[in-house]
Order: sequence, then C-alpha cells, then structure tokens
Amino acid sequence: MKAAIFIEEYRIEVQEVPDPVIQQATDAIVRVVMACVCGSDLWYYRGIGEHPRGSIGHEFIGVVEEVGSSVVFLKKGDFVIAPFAFSDNTCPHCRAGFHTACVNGSFFGMGEKNDGGQAEFVRVPQADGTLVRVEGDDFSEAMLASFLTLSDVMSTGYHAAVSAGVKEGGVAAIVGDGAVGLSAVLSAKLLGAEQIIIISRHESRQRLARDWGATHIVEERGEAGVKVVKALTAGVGADAVMECVGTKEANEMAFAMARPGAVVGRVGVPHEVTINPNTTFYYNIGMRGGPAPARAYIPALLNDVIKGRINPGRVFDFVTDLDNIQEAYAVMDERRAIKSLIKIS
Amino acid sequence: MKAAIFIEEYRIEVQEVPDPVIQQATDAIVRVVMACVCGSDLWYYRGIGEHPRGSIGHEFIGVVEEVGSSVVFLKKGDFVIAPFAFSDNTCPHCRAGFHTACVNGSFFGMGEKNDGGQAEFVRVPQADGTLVRVEGDDFSEAMLASFLTLSDVMSTGYHAAVSAGVKEGGVAAIVGDGAVGLSAVLSAKLLGAEQIIIISRHESRQRLARDWGATHIVEERGEAGVKVVKALTAGVGADAVMECVGTKEANEMAFAMARPGAVVGRVGVPHEVTINPNTTFYYNIGMRGGPAPARAYIPALLNDVIKGRINPGRVFDFVTDLDNIQEAYAVMDERRAIKSLIKIS
Repeated sequence: MKAAIFIEEYRIEVQEVPDPVIQQATDAIVRVVMACVCGSDLWYYRGIGEHPRGSIGHEFIGVVEEVGSSVVFLKKGDFVIAPFAFSDNTCPHCRAGFHTACVNGSFFGMGEKNDGGQAEFVRVPQADGTLVRVEGDDFSEAMLASFLTLSDVMSTGYHAAVSAGVKEGGVAAIVGDGAVGLSAVLSAKLLGAEQIIIISRHESRQRLARDWGATHIVEERGEAGVKVVKALTAGVGADAVMECVGTKEANEMAFAMARPGAVVGRVGVPHEVTINPNTTFYYNIGMRGGPAPARAYIPALLNDVIKGRINPGRVFDFVTDLDNIQEAYAVMDERRAIKSLIKIS
Repeated sequence: MKAAIFIEEYRIEVQEVPDPVIQQATDAIVRVVMACVCGSDLWYYRGIGEHPRGSIGHEFIGVVEEVGSSVVFLKKGDFVIAPFAFSDNTCPHCRAGFHTACVNGSFFGMGEKNDGGQAEFVRVPQADGTLVRVEGDDFSEAMLASFLTLSDVMSTGYHAAVSAGVKEGGVAAIVGDGAVGLSAVLSAKLLGAEQIIIISRHESRQRLARDWGATHIVEERGEAGVKVVKALTAGVGADAVMECVGTKEANEMAFAMARPGAVVGRVGVPHEVTINPNTTFYYNIGMRGGPAPARAYIPALLNDVIKGRINPGRVFDFVTDLDNIQEAYAVMDERRAIKSLIKIS
C-alpha cells in the first residue's frame, strides 16, 4: 500500500510499504477514506520536535476491512472514526474519561511503532475500545470532513473548552486561531458562552471564527492583547480561557487574561512554557487540559454533527490526495491554509 | 489597647497602641474575643517571607463595638466571624465567589496598613461585606474555637478540597499534616470522599487525621510516598489531591500522586515551587487553588459547625492569652503544637 513516510525535517515521501496485517486479536485493519494534517505534525515537520522516521498522521476516518478474533463491536464494512490515540476504553483512566492515559493505549503515527493515518490502510490496536462506528452510509463530502475533525482537531478544541470550564452565558477567550483555536470557538459556542473572544490576525481565520460564534476579534498580542481582553470584560478578565498554541508567549497571554478563579484549558503541546506558581496562586487561576480524550467526546460530537448543530469540517481549506502529502504539510507550514484534508479512497 | 506587634524574625511583642477608630463609613470596630496563629504567619516569623513591622494576625472572632455610618447589616453587640481577608462582597470577583481578589479588599494584619486580629480591637474595612454574624450568644468554648477556624484554617482546608474537586466516593490525598492539611481531611470527609490518604509523620496529627476521616496514613515522603499512594490506589493515583504546605517538595509530591485528569488543589503559599508544564500536560493533570475565599465558605461551614457535623476547633492544641503571644508562635515554630489559640476577651 501507499503511505506517507517522514524522512527528515521538511521531507515527507509517499512510499510503497507492506499492507498492515492483524497482529493481536484486538486489532482491526481500517481502509482510510480521509486523513488530515495536524498542527502538531508541524512541530516535527519543522524540525522542532522529535519524530521517528516512518509512519505519520493520527487523524483518519475509514472502513473496517478486517477484525481480530476478539473484536466484538466491529465488523468488516463498518464506517468508523478513529481518535488520534487508541485505547481499550475499559481501564480506570478510560473509565474516568481520560482515554489518552489508557494503560493499553498509545498514539497513531509513531514511525515504526504505530501505523499512521496518512496511508491507505491502518492497523488499529484495541479496535473495540478505539473506533467509533457511524451508522448509515450516505454522507456528503462536507459531512465526512466534519466526521474527520472529530479524530482530533474538533475534539481537541472541545477539550480546551471543557477543561477551561466554559459555562452558559460566560465569557470565553481563545488564544490561537489555528484549526484547534477555531474549533475551540465552535465548542465555546456549543457550550453556551455568550461572549467569545479570539486572538487572531489572519483575515480568513477571523471570518470562520465569526461564523462559528466569536463575538470579538483581538489582533493585539502579548500585554497589549491582554489589555484589550480586560477592556472587553470591564476589567474583570475572561471566565474561561483556552490555550490552543503551546508557545511560551501564548501561555503567558492565556494566564494573564483569566479572571481570578478562572481556569486555563490547555491543549497546545507546551514548548518551553513556564507556569508561574505564584501569580496563578494569588489570583486563584487554575489550569487543566492536555491531550484530548477524543474517544470520550466523539459520540456526543458526532451526534451534534449529524444533527447539523456544528459543522467543524469547514476548518479544512486545502484538499489534496496522498501523492501530494508534502504539499499538504507545506501549505500549513507556510500558513497558506488552516488545515489540509487528504482524500485517500 | 494591647496588640501583638511584629518586630523582626523570632520577635513579637505585645505593645500598647492607640485604639482603632472608624476611618471610613464602611468600617466597623470589632472587640476580639479569640484570635490564633496561622501556619503562614510562621513564614515571616522565621524570617523566610517579608512582613512589615506592626500589626499581625488575620484570624479572629469577636463582637461588633461600633459601625460606620453606611454599615447596614451589622450593629453593636453582634457576634461575628472575620475571614482573613476583607472584601466588599459585591464586586465581580466577590460575586464569582473569589473574595480574596476583591477590588476593594486586602488582608488583615499587614503592619501599619491593615489592623491585625492578634489585638484587643480591630478596625474592619468593608464591614458589611466582610463579617459574618453568628445568631445566638450562648456558645461553648469548643464551639467558639470551631467558629474561629472558619476565619482561615478550616476555610482554607475546604478550599483545597473544593479546588481539587473532591467527589462523593472518590480518593482524596492530602500533602501536609499541619492545621490546614488536617482541615483538608475533614473537608474531604464532609464532601464524601471514601478513601482519604494523608502524608504525615507526627503521631498527634495522625490521630486527629484518623478521627476526622483519614483512612490511610503515609509516612514516606518524596518518590517513596508517591509509590505508597499509587499502591493504595491500584496504581491509578488519587482522584483529588490537596497541597497544604507550599514547598517545592510538597508540590512535586502532590502533582506526582494525581491520577490522569485529576486536579491538585493548592492552598500552601508557594515558596520556590516549579510546576512542570509538560508532565502535567501529558497526563491532563490540573491545578487550582490559591488564597481561600473564606467569606464565601463561612455561612455553610458555620451551619455545619452549629449542627455538629464538623468540629474543626479540635485543631487547636495550645491555648494562651495575648501577653504570651510570642510563645504561641514558638510552640508552632518548634512543632510542639499544631495550632495556637489566643483568648483575648
């Protein structure tokens, strides 16, 4: 089969590799219909984070081709959404709703170790606990794109909102206007926030943010941006803050715009971030978040997508195929696109 | 009047100072009946933290002697509990339940700036928003001691439990066996935790912890202590962790024993603490807490005291009078007592 292979920074190739086969009785093989590129993929693409040579991509939807002997909830032909991490859905951490800490889990797209979704087929470990079946089979391309976002980006934005404790009628502030930040806007709206403030300088992103419920766009960054957010909230600060970038600057902004007692919901993978133990303490500012337990959120968000309450697939503004995977990364790296979708089969 | 005055490290004197007078229409003058020494007072007593020369003590109960012209909810003769911080109870932060961030508030016992409770009389700013009246006037000494704990120590332990999100049937772990840590045990029990683990090496403290609901005492510290907590929770970690010390070591232990998705409720004033932005992130471990909004908790906790559901006054194991204030600090500094009560009038 064809699969995207990470070679080195700025270099991804499509190579012919052996088709995956069932290795454990709990595995399934999925034929990938659509995959996409994650903002977090850009860290290693740019040579900032480490990544083993080999398979990449952790967001995909597809059709079950084959199941291992102990798989009971899935069968060949099922249309499924894969969260970016696999998990058994039965361990204490999964049962507590934190599937990314599953004792039998790990992440897709880890070089030689775990298959990636940017490929024609994927071996899915812990298939029963991982894959969420979608009932029905006649979905529009737009609907499929929205399903695909549940793999990671929409679930991650939703995790930011849940972690920050967004409440009905409250003020939600989002740092980051990438695909996750925009999904956080949509999530804050879904959870009933009344005032939704996003830090954004890119016009196309601002437009989508407004469509999804942002009531205020703040173009300033750093202290100047915090000042604007404070002014927009009568000096109080935001009730719930979502950190969707992961840099030191974005984290500083996020903590500084939180009102006393508020929580910063962090979903941006931290890169050289410092959390001030004292200022957070004196103002009772909290922090939650981490890798989103997408598996926990998919069923409810899927229902929201099917009912037409949310349309997170709009985050994709570049579509290509597997042969052009390098370009899918390049357009995101160069900020020519918010997020790239890869049609595979 | 007589008042305890902080001179320099390890030196507190009782001095004759002018009686406080009403300065603002929102003030009240309170005759102090009982005061006490806080674990946080030990920081400056030991010369570790800064404190201006002058008035000290932020925990007191007493009787209203006089009120300013705009005070409407209080009158001379009312028996009151003072939270350790004064607040207007009407600003956005107070209305959100975070009174220690009140825009018109500050802390008692700040040298020349704000009167301290370790004195015969106190000028209480923002009296209507600050003081909580106790109905009735025939209370036992034990009941009065419990009222006094609501000023700070019990409210702070409760804030640790609330911040950590202690839930009915859950596993609560407490780092610190000082008066606050013990109050956190009592609070975890009040909130329905089923397994309550405290890190403690002092026999008298262990005894009170057990009386108040601790199910497990862990004597080990550092990594060894974390290992025991993990073993006690089938490898999972605690559902809610309360950090009641404020040192680097105590914070490290607290974060390390939290299960994925759990929150560390911090109430120990941080001293050279580092919060790891990455390990907390990858395991979705959160952090909340800070100075307790005692004013928000007192009404409900007062009801619990009066109904006999909790008896936090048992935390006092040394009783003296104002003339012996230095000894009240010394017994706590030297760990000869958990907490000192000072009978004043």
